[in-house]
Parts: sequence; C-alpha cells; structure tokens
Amino acid sequence: MTERKLHLNAFLMNTGHHEASWRLPESDPYAHVDLQHHVRLARIAERGTFDSLFLADGPQLWSNLAQRPAGALEPLTLLTALATATEHIGLIATASTSYNSPYNLARKFASLDIISGGRAGWNIVTTAGAEAARNFGLDAEPAHAERYARAAEFLDVARKLWDSWEDDAIVADKAAGVWGDDSKIHPPRHRGRYFGVEGALNVPRTPQGYPLLVQAGSSEDGKAFAARYAEAVFTAQQTLADAQAFYADLKSRTRRAGRDPGHLKVLPGIVPVLGSTEAEARAAEQLLAEHIVYDHGVLRLERLLQLPSHTLELDAPLPDGLPPESAVEGAKSRYTLVVELARRERLTVRQLITRLGGGRGHLTFAGTPEQVADQIETWFTQGAADGFNIMPPVLPSGLDAFVEHVVPLLRARGLFRDAYGPRRTLRERYGLPRPANQYLTPAPALA
Amino acid sequence: MTERKLHLNAFLMNTGHHEASWRLPESDPYAHVDLQHHVRLARIAERGTFDSLFLADGPQLWSNLAQRPAGALEPLTLLTALATATEHIGLIATASTSYNSPYNLARKFASLDIISGGRAGWNIVTTAGAEAARNFGLDAEPAHAERYARAAEFLDVARKLWDSWEDDAIVADKAAGVWGDDSKIHPPRHRGRYFGVEGALNVPRTPQGYPLLVQAGSSEDGKAFAARYAEAVFTAQQTLADAQAFYADLKSRTRRAGRDPGHLKVLPGIVPVLGSTEAEARAAEQLLAEHIVYDHGVLRLERLLQLPSHTLELDAPLPDGLPPESAVEGAKSRYTLVVELARRERLTVRQLITRLGGGRGHLTFAGTPEQVADQIETWFTQGAADGFNIMPPVLPSGLDAFVEHVVPLLRARGLFRDAYGPRRTLRERYGLPRPANQYLTPAPALA
Repeated sequence: MTERKLHLNAFLMNTGHHEASWRLPESDPYAHVDLQHHVRLARIAERGTFDSLFLADGPQLWSNLAQRPAGALEPLTLLTALATATEHIGLIATASTSYNSPYNLARKFASLDIISGGRAGWNIVTTAGAEAARNFGLDAEPAHAERYARAAEFLDVARKLWDSWEDDAIVADKAAGVWGDDSKIHPPRHRGRYFGVEGALNVPRTPQGYPLLVQAGSSEDGKAFAARYAEAVFTAQQTLADAQAFYADLKSRTRRAGRDPGHLKVLPGIVPVLGSTEAEARAAEQLLAEHIVYDHGVLRLERLLQLPSHTLELDAPLPDGLPPESAVEGAKSRYTLVVELARRERLTVRQLITRLGGGRGHLTFAGTPEQVADQIETWFTQGAADGFNIMPPVLPSGLDAFVEHVVPLLRARGLFRDAYGPRRTLRERYGLPRPANQYLTPAPALA
Repeated sequence: MTERKLHLNAFLMNTGHHEASWRLPESDPYAHVDLQHHVRLARIAERGTFDSLFLADGPQLWSNLAQRPAGALEPLTLLTALATATEHIGLIATASTSYNSPYNLARKFASLDIISGGRAGWNIVTTAGAEAARNFGLDAEPAHAERYARAAEFLDVARKLWDSWEDDAIVADKAAGVWGDDSKIHPPRHRGRYFGVEGALNVPRTPQGYPLLVQAGSSEDGKAFAARYAEAVFTAQQTLADAQAFYADLKSRTRRAGRDPGHLKVLPGIVPVLGSTEAEARAAEQLLAEHIVYDHGVLRLERLLQLPSHTLELDAPLPDGLPPESAVEGAKSRYTLVVELARRERLTVRQLITRLGGGRGHLTFAGTPEQVADQIETWFTQGAADGFNIMPPVLPSGLDAFVEHVVPLLRARGLFRDAYGPRRTLRERYGLPRPANQYLTPAPALA
C-alpha cells in the first residue's frame, strides 16, 4: 500500500467556487472569458504536479446575470488552448451525451488527445434541466432514465469510433504509393435506438486510444453508468461515513460489472479555505459569506428544490413534505445531498445558503494547511477517496495557496508525487491501462 | 482604387494540395495529425502577412486509405491551438450546417473568437454526400435545396445567439453585488422549421460580434446563400473570363440582396507551382504528376461524376451523355467545372486526372514568381478577384516559396500590405465593418 498515491484534480471555475468570490477586491469579474486567467491557473496546477484540470459545463445560460458571473468559454475549446500552454497536466472537458452527436464529439476529443499528446479526458454528463433541452428543439428535458440510456449507447458508439482505426493503419509507403491499410479500418455500422453511425472516424487512433472517461452523477442511474464506463468519478460527499459508503458501493459495483475496481478512481470534491492559523481560515470563510447576496441564494435554492418562488423563508428551516429523490427529474443526487445536509445539521435557509455558497454541496473545509492535509490523508487512507477534486473558493489565490502550502505536506508524507516523472498520458498519470482496440484480433502465430 | 489591396488566404492541407505531395521525399506522411507541422505553416503565413488560414472539412472518412492521407484534426480544435501560436492571422474553420446544432456551433465559434482576440472565421458548408449523412443517422443525404434551406435558418439562429448578449451586458458592480444586466440579454426564442432555440448563448458577445462568414459553394443555391450571408467567398475558376463572370454575378446578387457588394470578398483558389525559371516550374509540376496513382484517380473521378465503377477509360475522353448539373445532388458546381474543363480542353481521363490532382478543379499555375504575381495582378485588377485562396501543391515548402518570392513582388507593386498594422480583428483585416447587434435599440436622446 506504500505505493498508492493520491490523485489531484484542479476544478477550475471563473474567479473561484465560492459564489461571491467575484466580489473580492482581488478578483477579475471578466476572468471567465480571459484566456490568460486560465493559462495562469493551469500553470499553477502544473507546478503542483496535479493529475488534471477540469471544466464543468452545460449548454445553457444560467439565469440570472445579476447574481454572479455567467457564461463561459466552451471547455473543449478552452482546454485545447491550455494544451499548448502546458506540458504534463491532464485536460478534462465536460460534454453532454444528450445534446451532441457521437461522430462530432468523438472527433473533437480525439483531436484534443492528439494535440495534447494524450492528455484528454471527458467528463460525461447527461445534462439535467429544461433550459438546456429548449436550446435543442425539445420542450422539456428527457426523463432521467432516458438520458442515461442514451448516454450508454453514446459511449458504445464513441468507443467504436475511437477504435475504428487500428494503431498501425497508416503504412506510409511512399515508393509503392500506399498511404494506409484499409483492412485496418473498422466502420462501426451502428444502428441503435438513439444513433446511426455507419463510417469510421476521420481521425487516427490517438495516444490514449480514447480520452479518460470521467463521470460525476451519483444517482442510481449515475452509479450504474460509472461502474460500467467511468475511470474516474467526481462526487460530492459531506461526511467521512457517507464518502466511505459511496466509495465501497462504487468499487463493488465496478467489480460486479466485470471490471477491476482499481481502474475506477473516486475523487470527492473539497473546497479548502486556507489560513496560516485556524482563526485566519475562519475569518477568510466569514469574509466570503459576507459577500453572499441572500436574495439570489433563495431563488437558486428554490430552483434546485423545484419549489415555487417565494416558498422559502431565510431564517426558517426547509419546509416539510419535500418530494423524494425518485420524484425529481433533474440533478437527483445533488437534491438529496442538499436536503439531507439541511436536516442533519438543522440549518435555516440562510445557513444552508451560506454552506452551499462555498461549494454547491461539496465539502468546505476551513483550516490550516496541516488540517487540510490531515483531512485529505484521513479520507485517502480510510477508504473514502483515491484522490480529490480540489475546488478553491477563490481563484487564482486559493489554488496558489493549496500548491504552495498543502501540496508540500502531502509530498512530505509520501502521499503525493514529487514530480511528473516519465509517465506521459493522462491515463498513465491515473495509473490506468491504455484500452485495447475492440476490433483487434489476436496476432496469428508465427509460421 | 490605389487604396484597394489584395487579400490572401492560406488554404492548409496536410502535405499539400497536390494529391501526390505526400510521396515526395520532403513530405511527412503523418503531417495531418502533427500540431507542429501546422504551427510551422501558420507562422510562415503570418510572416507573409496573410489575412487568414483556412481548413476544409467533412464529417466522414474519405475512402480509401490506400490512396493518400485521410483523416484530419477537427478544424475548430486545431485552429484554437494555432490561435495560441500566432498573433495576427485569421483562423477560418469549416463546419457543417447539416450536421451540427446551432447552439453548440455558435458557442464554439464565439469561444474561438474570444480566445484569438477576434480572429475567427466560419466557412459555412452544407456537406454533400451520403457518407456524411450515414454518420448522423440518415440513410441518404438531404436534397441540395433542403440543405440550403436548413443552412439559412441555421445562420439566422446563430446570429440571434451571437447577438443575445449586448456588448455591455456585464456590469461588474462588486459593491452592489450586481454582475450583469439581465435587460441586455436577448433570448432568441426561435421556433423554426429545422431548429428550436429558446435561450441566450452562454458566452458574451465577442470581439468581432460573430466570426467572419465565409462560403464556398458556387451552385445557384450556393450563390444565393452567399449574396445573403457571406463576407468572403472561396471559388474555383479556371479562366479569367469565367472568374470575371462569377465575380460580377456575385457582386450584383449581393447588391440586389440589399448589401454593399464591397462587403463580400471574392477569393478564387490558385495552386502556384513555382520555379526560378519557367522550365523549373514545369519540371516541378511534372515531378508531382509522376507520383499520381492513376487507378485511384479514376475511382475518385467516377465518384465525383456519379458513374458506376470501371466506366472510365484512362486514355479516352469523358463519355457522352453525362447528366446535367440540375440532376446532381452532391457538389453541383464542382461537377460542372470538371466536365466543362474536360470538354473545353479536350482532355483524356488521364490528362483530366493530372489536372485535378494538382488542385481538385482550382487553377494550377506553374511559373516564375513574376509570372504568378502577374497572374494575380491581372485577375485582381480586371474584375475577377478581391484576393486569392493560396493552395500550395506541397507543404510547407510551397507556402514558404510563395511567401519568400511572390509576396515581396506583390508588396513592391503596391498590391499587398507590408505589415499587419493596427487593425486587429479578421473582419478589420478584410476591410469589413463589425456587425451591429440586431437587438440593439437606438440610444435615447440626452435629456
């Protein structure tokens, strides 16, 4: 077990994961559309030898604009630009299986994998919400189960496309005038419930074969999907016990799906609020809370809980009689997490908004670098995590502080790499094998 | 008229536009998936103060692999990487209106426009061919007129999305906790024949407002579309007279569509085969022709002409009785150009393949730098072109030779810019105005 190392992913988000971060004097309210802001973040994460960067996404404009920074550069586009500004770090882009075509999306990820030298990852989302659906000709969002059925077929088709060129399909025989070997091309000829894809991809097989497959839904459908396809899972867990239960459940499901559970890495989100003393960390947390606009928080919470406007009162607890997760069509697991958090800690709506404002349901932990490193070590060594999705409350300063003060402690404890070393691809970084090509027949025995 | 300047676009294509270029000793058969090859090309073009780079594309693998390099990095992805390696040059990506969603594609172009500082361009194609259709769940390609009707609606929706944020929608009032002004967001609420798009784009309005709109179809539908939407048109013309007629026709259509004909730039393609003497240029052309594999050429020509296999004979002319353009559903204008070229010059199939191998119907011109500059000046000053789409037969050497030997002559004659100067966006480079926002009401008079 001494060989087991932490994996760290930097979850980039405009001026930070705290919803009020943009209001701090240090923050640039235009950071979300500034390439140089993102280059700076990527280079800080690479200095900290993080495994990867990650960008969330949804194909809709979150209302409303008054509240906080909205809109973002499209993740695959932004990460392609960051690929040229970095050398080692993985690049994980969110993209929706509900609102893309397999041929187009498979091609874009293959292109990024080639351009980055094997550093592409795909955070596979099915995209909750009617707003997104209405941007793609639908009146309402497809049902949760329907979205996951489409996602599974999407993945099957995408993997056929990524395997449609054998690694050695290019012959490049100039003298004979033969560039490629058509017998090493395998058109998917796929006709399914959601997709028809006849031909091979128009990009050769990539350094990784295909991008690292990442997933973040923690509903029943989400966990079943992860067990079948995902190589890394982002998750929001509030307590060690919950995180251990989730970890054990997902590893067990992965084993039952016929896969090596070591080939699925579980990465809970953590929002580290750092101070050189505990009091300083608490003060930093308090400063952020003072910048929250609670009227906006109420609107967002009502939306998440699918309640009519003006239902919630700021200084009262959540009302009784909220529907069960099974009745919710949107982001199911996030819904349950928020309701359980409020109930368990007997929070008023104001207190709940304060907690959510820091990390939208992810674990916020304010403390010294030693305390944050302790927390990470505990979860890592006690069966709750293979690593963490680091979500700094303020960017770039929160990422810089983590790299300067927490990463050295993790290294000193032997938990985290000191340098990138010889492994080159994102999948190698996460200790995962390169996928075999599904069309490859065993080589014939030598005569 | 002394102020009128040429516009030059570098059309990048693997190892070059000549189909046999990959077989030359200098060529890298893996160049199509090598970022550094493309960075090198982009920097040569920028040294030559070209207006823009351009990448063609189609969402299918061209059969068959034996013949020549196939597959390519997806253009928007590759051009995003090139944006970070260049400072001035425009970046024109081909993308299909038949096989994309307006919301996704509008967002990607907006992201590239922001990342590149206003250098994005979109070559709008409707994508001919059943192969592409079958990669997107269709059995056959949509009819030509249907594809163009969808393209027109696509453009209307995309422009609504690009205008959905006013330029000053971001307020960034940290003290008041107000980030944006929701009254300056304009959701398209579009419900049309092909698309339903309800919400605003999730990217702010970009430096150019939207990408430079480029078009390359020269069929009746294509020309009507160009007159309505295009700001630059790539075209294949074999003779000065044909080019003049096309130029006059397109400018007249643009005027009739209510637009300033100066706001549509016509750029014929030219394949310059350069030598320091005319004999050297002819020898270079001959060397390329000797590398053509004619069996492959016959297959491709049969496919373009929609003939059964083994119809054509290498040393005979094209057969009589080919169908008229109106009966063709694929690339209509290319079909006519090829048939007319063969008839006009009484070419055998072998001779036709030799001619097409150099530039797929674009004008191949072998000569000294002076002769090429003369040809360019003639077309530019005699009403046939506003500039050229430069298609080097071999890359990078052919682009390098053009920049080293032809560009200085064009500058010395006062036809082309000496340096990029203060204009920053691609649209400014082409001398075009930034589009007004369609949702913007005139400012109220001062009280």
